[in-house]
Amino acid sequence: MTTPFSHLLRIYWEDTDAGGVVFYANYLKFFERARTEWLRTRGFEQEVLRATQRVMFVVADTRVRYLRPARLDDQLRITVDVREAGRASMDIAQVAWRGDQRLAEGEIRIGCVDTDSFKPRRIPGELLEGLVLAPR
Amino acid sequence: MTTPFSHLLRIYWEDTDAGGVVFYANYLKFFERARTEWLRTRGFEQEVLRATQRVMFVVADTRVRYLRPARLDDQLRITVDVREAGRASMDIAQVAWRGDQRLAEGEIRIGCVDTDSFKPRRIPGELLEGLVLAPR
Amino acid sequence: MTTPFSHLLRIYWEDTDAGGVVFYANYLKFFERARTEWLRTRGFEQEVLRATQRVMFVVADTRVRYLRPARLDDQLRITVDVREAGRASMDIAQVAWRGDQRLAEGEIRIGCVDTDSFKPRRIPGELLEGLVLAPR
Amino acid sequence: MTTPFSHLLRIYWEDTDAGGVVFYANYLKFFERARTEWLRTRGFEQEVLRATQRVMFVVADTRVRYLRPARLDDQLRITVDVREAGRASMDIAQVAWRGDQRLAEGEIRIGCVDTDSFKPRRIPGELLEGLVLAPR
Repeated sequence: MTTPFSHLLRIYWEDTDAGGVVFYANYLKFFERARTEWLRTRGFEQEVLRATQRVMFVVADTRVRYLRPARLDDQLRITVDVREAGRASMDIAQVAWRGDQRLAEGEIRIGCVDTDSFKPRRIPGELLEGLVLAPR
Repeated sequence: MTTPFSHLLRIYWEDTDAGGVVFYANYLKFFERARTEWLRTRGFEQEVLRATQRVMFVVADTRVRYLRPARLDDQLRITVDVREAGRASMDIAQVAWRGDQRLAEGEIRIGCVDTDSFKPRRIPGELLEGLVLAPR
Repeated sequence: MTTPFSHLLRIYWEDTDAGGVVFYANYLKFFERARTEWLRTRGFEQEVLRATQRVMFVVADTRVRYLRPARLDDQLRITVDVREAGRASMDIAQVAWRGDQRLAEGEIRIGCVDTDSFKPRRIPGELLEGLVLAPR
Repeated sequence: MTTPFSHLLRIYWEDTDAGGVVFYANYLKFFERARTEWLRTRGFEQEVLRATQRVMFVVADTRVRYLRPARLDDQLRITVDVREAGRASMDIAQVAWRGDQRLAEGEIRIGCVDTDSFKPRRIPGELLEGLVLAPR
């Protein structure tokens, strides 16, 4: 079994709301940061992909369950785990952890589109290989 | 058949990202604004509910499908439609419209909790009546 | 004496932080929304200006003094008052009001730049006239 | 001469706007993150200060000059340099760097206030010593 990619981040004032906890919409930002770092770790920069391959990823569907609140100064660990990779889209499971507590769970579907037309495009082979097939 | 509640809003620079369109996480903010105005229209201010009834709503689960991008200067109409109301939670369907185009669809589950303990609490009767049962 | 342009807005959860008040960085967003609506009122849409005149406004300098906190559900009124208009930049004074209380005061310098080169450009005459010289 | 504290951060989609660059209001967030990490490095957590010393810092005045745009995937280095420390407030100079380019310069005044009354309070001695007087 492989270990999913992990990204560490800190909770700042900007992330919280008047309930004293992290504003729930921000978990989508945390999940995004982790996916970006995961891509970078595998050797892909999104700006470079846009320029050279003329593809970009767009978020098509997000599902998030909020289990426990995070607070100011907390350190969170965000995991990235590809569940399924199709021709033009990927389903990614993500979890926000504080220590061994699951704070939020997400399922994010991202689609691969052409930079100009925004039409769905097949995920380039080297990208798919680098992200999904390579041993982690 | 009743018409769901609608809230109008405008897309500003703060809402967009380098893709030239609205950053997808922001639809959760738009849906939240619409729910807040819907509560207000029915006579409920969240700060007042917190102070007098010792209850607050927390978001427990969000699902959003992104259909078409919104852009700077667009005017969006966000609808709020209660699908199901249980003892301590409500399922709300929301749509972001530009004219008659559906841009994003959300299903938001909000739970009613005690202000101090954050434990689930029955939705106060007058609130439930005001939100769900009253003719729209 | 003329009255400055006013824009009304509401404080939502997204605007607050764990201190229970509006996160200070968000006043820059509020000021921006008011400037956008002020432009729109005078007949200028920024996307149209970008497409037809090849100019856009960029923020070059911001100064904000925070006087009193705003809270959830507050309604704020944001004013826009051009203090000085040069060839390629404008100095705009902005205030966030709650009723007759000044909550924050800003001085924002915006520069006019070419859409492609990002180099400073003279503010188009009709724009300057529409924004500054016309009777308010 | 001493070196100011530095904090590294990455630019993600959430930080950008439709102009293709970092939304200017976000530099206030970056400056805040750096001040929080600077406090942490010196041994002070804001939540702990709130609980034990009954003090918190509030931002009273911000000035930011925007010199060059930052873009997606850029790594920024944010510096923190106390310029003046009074009885109840501090003036902090901050710069956002990309490599050796200055992207934005800020002057931030933070005040020390009582957690309950929000009234100005003398900065606790050990805090002042830890932040300003100790050799860096």
